Order: sequence, then C-alpha cells, then structure tokens
Amino acid sequence: MPLRDDMTLISVDDHLIEHPRVWADRLSGADAENGPRIIETDKGHQVWTYEGRMYPAIGLNAVVGKDPREWGWDPVRYDQMLPGCYDPRQRLADFDVDGIYAGMSFPSFPRFAGTVFLEGKDKDLALKCVQAYNDYHIDEWSATDPSRLPPMVILPLWDVQLCVRELQRTVAKGAKGVSFVESPEPLGLPSFHTDHWDPFFSAVEEIDIPLSMHFGTSGTRPFTAEDAPEATFIALMGLNSMKAMVDLLFSPVFHRHPNLKILLAEGGIGWMPYLLERADMTFDRQRFWQPINQDVRPSELFAQHIWGCFISDRTGIWLRYDIGVDKILWECDFPHSDSLWPNSRKMLAEALADVSDDEAAAIAGGNAAKLFRLTTG
Amino acid sequence: MPLRDDMTLISVDDHLIEHPRVWADRLSGADAENGPRIIETDKGHQVWTYEGRMYPAIGLNAVVGKDPREWGWDPVRYDQMLPGCYDPRQRLADFDVDGIYAGMSFPSFPRFAGTVFLEGKDKDLALKCVQAYNDYHIDEWSATDPSRLPPMVILPLWDVQLCVRELQRTVAKGAKGVSFVESPEPLGLPSFHTDHWDPFFSAVEEIDIPLSMHFGTSGTRPFTAEDAPEATFIALMGLNSMKAMVDLLFSPVFHRHPNLKILLAEGGIGWMPYLLERADMTFDRQRFWQPINQDVRPSELFAQHIWGCFISDRTGIWLRYDIGVDKILWECDFPHSDSLWPNSRKMLAEALADVSDDEAAAIAGGNAAKLFRLTTG
Repeated sequence: MPLRDDMTLISVDDHLIEHPRVWADRLSGADAENGPRIIETDKGHQVWTYEGRMYPAIGLNAVVGKDPREWGWDPVRYDQMLPGCYDPRQRLADFDVDGIYAGMSFPSFPRFAGTVFLEGKDKDLALKCVQAYNDYHIDEWSATDPSRLPPMVILPLWDVQLCVRELQRTVAKGAKGVSFVESPEPLGLPSFHTDHWDPFFSAVEEIDIPLSMHFGTSGTRPFTAEDAPEATFIALMGLNSMKAMVDLLFSPVFHRHPNLKILLAEGGIGWMPYLLERADMTFDRQRFWQPINQDVRPSELFAQHIWGCFISDRTGIWLRYDIGVDKILWECDFPHSDSLWPNSRKMLAEALADVSDDEAAAIAGGNAAKLFRLTTG
Repeated sequence: MPLRDDMTLISVDDHLIEHPRVWADRLSGADAENGPRIIETDKGHQVWTYEGRMYPAIGLNAVVGKDPREWGWDPVRYDQMLPGCYDPRQRLADFDVDGIYAGMSFPSFPRFAGTVFLEGKDKDLALKCVQAYNDYHIDEWSATDPSRLPPMVILPLWDVQLCVRELQRTVAKGAKGVSFVESPEPLGLPSFHTDHWDPFFSAVEEIDIPLSMHFGTSGTRPFTAEDAPEATFIALMGLNSMKAMVDLLFSPVFHRHPNLKILLAEGGIGWMPYLLERADMTFDRQRFWQPINQDVRPSELFAQHIWGCFISDRTGIWLRYDIGVDKILWECDFPHSDSLWPNSRKMLAEALADVSDDEAAAIAGGNAAKLFRLTTG
C-alpha cells in the first residue's frame, strides 16, 4: 500500500459545530442578547437566534457516526450529535480512530464563509460576531492543539477594508486559512470582474495565505427542478466549484494578483482536466472579441493559482498528472454525510493503491502542509 | 492514423439556418402573416418576426468559415453567412471539403428544441409552425440527400398528446432524430419527476428513436455574475448537460421507460466518469431517505440510456473505457463557433491517434449510425 501508516493525513475541509456559548461568551449587554445564541423550542429542538431571526439547523448535516439508513434530517439537539462535532478534544479522539493527523474546519451556524453576518442589520454587531467566531476558533477550538486543528477564519464580507483588517488581526494570532466565498455576486456583493476586492487580495498575497472556497458559499446551488430529489443536488455539488474556477480564470483577479492561491473545497477534482481543456479551447478561439486577458491560457493560470481536494474521486486520482499531483489535497468532510469517517484512511489507501509512495504522501498531507504552511508535529 | 480515410464521419450535432420562406411557403392567409417571416430593418438587418414579436438573430452563431478574430456578433443578413448555413446542397459541398459523410441539424430560429413556439399566443398557429418546420426539414432540407442529412424534428411541447402525434407523423415520413428539451421545468413545463411525459416517452420507446437533448434547450445557461465575460458561459456550457444527466438519472423516467435513449448534445464527455462516480456515491449513501429508486445505480442507468458526443475532448477520449466506447459520438457543430470545420476530420484524426481502428470507426460514425439507425451509403 503506497499510503503507509507513517504518512501524515491532513483534511482541508472539515466542519465544526459551534457550541451554544461561542458568541454569548464573547459579547456583552445588548450584543449578547442580539448576537447568536441557542434557544429551546416547544418541540424540544435547539435553534440559533440572531437579531430575532431563527436559524433552525444547529449542525448542518452532522450525521457522522450514524447509519446512512437513519440520515435525512439534521440533528435538532446537541445531544443527538457525536461530541466530536463541537468538542475539539473529542474531535482529536475521532481523528485518532481514523488515523487523521489534522483537519481544518469551516463554521456551521455562520455558514461556511460567514455569510450569515451579511444579513446582520447592526453591522457593528456583525463585525463583533465575525471577530468572536474567529477568536473562538483560534483561542478555543484550535488552541486545543494548533498543529492538529489549524485555524481557518471568516471575514466581514460587507466591507473590504474590514476584511483586510480582520485578516491581518487573525493571521497575527495564528490563522492558517481563510474561508472566502466561491462567488460574491449572488450574495449582493461586487463580482470578481470588478476591482472591489483588490485591496483584500493584495493583503492576502502579501501574507501568502490561501483562500478556501467551499462549495455553496455563494448561496446558490445547482438547480434542475423544484420537485427534483435532493440526490440531484448532492450529486451536482461540484458544479459550483466548476463555476467558481471558470469565473476566476476569465476574471482579472489572477492577472492583478500573481501570488493569490485558491483552494476549491468539496467540489471534487475529476472534472478539472475536462474543464481546463474546455476553458483553453474557449480562450484559444473566443478571446479576441472579449474583454479578457489575451495572453495567458486558463490552464496556465490554474497551475499557478488553484488547488482542489477530494473525499473519494477515482477519476481524479487517475487523471492526477493532468491536474498536477501537487494540486491535489485530501478532505475528510467530518461530520457531514459525504465523509467516510471512521473509514477515511482505509478508503484513501484503496484509492491511492496504484500511485507511487511520494505521490501518496503528497496527496494525503504533504500538499496541504505546504499550501497552508502547517507544522506536522 | 486509426481514423482511416474510408471511415465514415457522422456529426450528430449541426445546425441549419432556416431560409426566409420556410414558414411563408407552408402557411396561408393570416397564418402566413402571423407566422415566422423575415423583415428588413432600418439598419439593413434581416430579422425574424412571429406574431408581432421580433427575433433579431437570423443565424445564431453562424460564424463558420470566418477568422476567429472577426467573431463576436451574429451575422445580420443571409449574405453575410456561408451559404452552407441555409442551403442543403452547399452544406453537402461543405461536408465534402471536410470529409464528413452526414450531419444531423438542429433548428435555429425555433431554437434548438423548438421552444420558441411555446411563446406562441395562437397555439393552433404554433402547431402549424412546428409542422411546417418539420415538413421543411424532411421534405426540403433532408430530401436533398436523406442519408447525408438525416432529419431531426421538433415537437409541440405544450401538449404531450400533440407531441405523440407529431412524433408519429414525422417518423412515418422519415424522421431519424427528435430534438427534446434537456429540462422542461425552467420552460414552465412539468419536470421529469412527474408522470406528465409518460405517454410521449412510451411512444418514443415504441418507435425506438433517440431523443437529442442539446445544451441550452431548457432556456437556462450557466451563470456566474452579470458582468462575467461571455467566455465564462462558453466554457461552462457542459454544465447544462451534467444537470440534465443527473436530473434524469435520479428521476423515474428510465425506470418507467426501459428502452428510452438520450443523446446529450454539445455538452462534451470528459466529465462523465467523474459525475457518474459522484452520482453512484450519492446513490450508495444517500438514497435511503429519498423518494428515488432504491435498486439501480445511476451508472447502470447511464449505460442503458445515455449517449454523449464531443467536438474536441482529449480527456473524454482518454477516459473512453469509463464512459463506454459505444456511448461516444462525434459532432461537427457546423456552423457554430465551436466547430472545427473545415479541419474537423484532421483534428478528429489527431484526437483518435492512440485509439484502435475499431474504436475510431465506432466513435467517428459507427455509433451514430447504430443509435439513429442511419444508412451510410
């Protein structure tokens, strides 16, 4: 088996469930009242409230450890979840069971890129909520073991200068990753085709920290029909990452920010060679009449700027030389329904059975450690 | 070269531009006045009118034969196009230049699946317009050489019983293919998850004719941002075919219609193995809580029911055993901007350089002849 026991396994896409007091512990007075907090409903459910709005899913898709035959609805109480969903010590114990060294977690209640705070009417409070989440993630969740739970932060997306400041503040205290939206325009923010984000991207370049763009952070999902079963959407999730990749490749972003690094999270990788070929063909034949860069092919930009990750993707492993072995990272997706935990390592070993030892080590953890500049104990 | 000169090349996705009198020649009185006809504008453009509505693009993307540096806008007059766009004898001459034996054409003004007639206020007239198009395609366009220009028809989509009758009428007079929408719901029609289309699909099964679902026939297109350049959309066109495939695989359609055959047109093929793997994983782990078939994996349904085609798709050829060599057809896309004409055969030969002779013959034309039951002279 090329995935030897001594090879470090690092997941670049996990999810933590915020415990009930994350914001209450860090906000005071009216802020604590209006900020996110958990209430009990008549039905015995626990739900988040924020500025009077109700957010029923305490742990989006926190199904890990359950029989797939029992899936379907999110847990409605913390005591229905595996403690590793919200308790960092338990998370490490869960990692140990599966031979996982480290995992970087996206938030849950704030949504994967913190876009819930775009809905905040009181933007001073919203900023405090973003900061409270980041402080919780760094000082409490990751502090349990900073090497094994490298912190990933969210940003006050409604104000690009605030994004710069929160980025700098959190990196100074240890942030290793940044969750950023796969596409800002559907959220009512300027698109990647504007110059709006330039000050932020410049700050990101200077710090040299990758932006993790999780599927769904644009607030859109692949739609076929109102009455299509949920399976349709689940199978098509990667289309959001495809759109994000092509949108960026034909935008001015990488031409203005030659050191920017993007990780597409939970979109898979097996589609990348097809789509890069298609993007290059589009560039080769259709660029002349369009306001896009005329010199650099999309596949060249991809090689410099974009990384991908997978849970299970036989096609992607098979096509690894077309993607670039160094561009492929692994994800556990703990505790969501796509996760293979507690059999992640076993399944990854099977998936990597035909690759070389060096490639297996890179895909399992080496590429992640390099991209996010992680220490691996 | 595996693509030998004696191997038959058949395109399953071309486009014809209707000449100005297609409907005027076949409608009378008020119908001729209200049906589609060409008018000249003050600017010297030729545009279609239909029931008083204006449809400016006479030949969507009819750019073949022009330097890509001059692309960008559709021709505004017939005399700005290659005559092979609208003249079947010229089309055959254009085919000869490129070593193409046969090509099946979608319509232009009616849109690829005739959805323009869904907009008709007078549905009696709309039905006559659908019939007029089909009569034109069979009796005029294809009659020039039925083997080399096999007819593909459109349907009165607003009425499923009329669809059955028009299908039967046109097959009786020689139709070899049927253009059908990749997704009906965005057009205001019942989705594939209803039983609405069952009488039509049953008729299709009985006749044993494939349905060609062209990219874009749902009236939707991949969207990233309002200000994204057109290149973004062009590179992402395949996403519509991905959505159509998954929507069908998780619908009741193939379970109710075990002999139904679908061709996904202009969506490429290189993404199919990734998406089938993803759909199978979704089925394996997520089916239990969903109202979907619990017994047959999506990849098994694909093998029985879905075909794909490509213009240029190195990844798809490389992955041909994962797709199924017999599921892969070729398309020229004449006269659209994706077409490689007059270098199609040369480029296809290069693309097939590493495949066996048998596989090359099947992909170039054998699979198309079998699926559409074409005679190849």
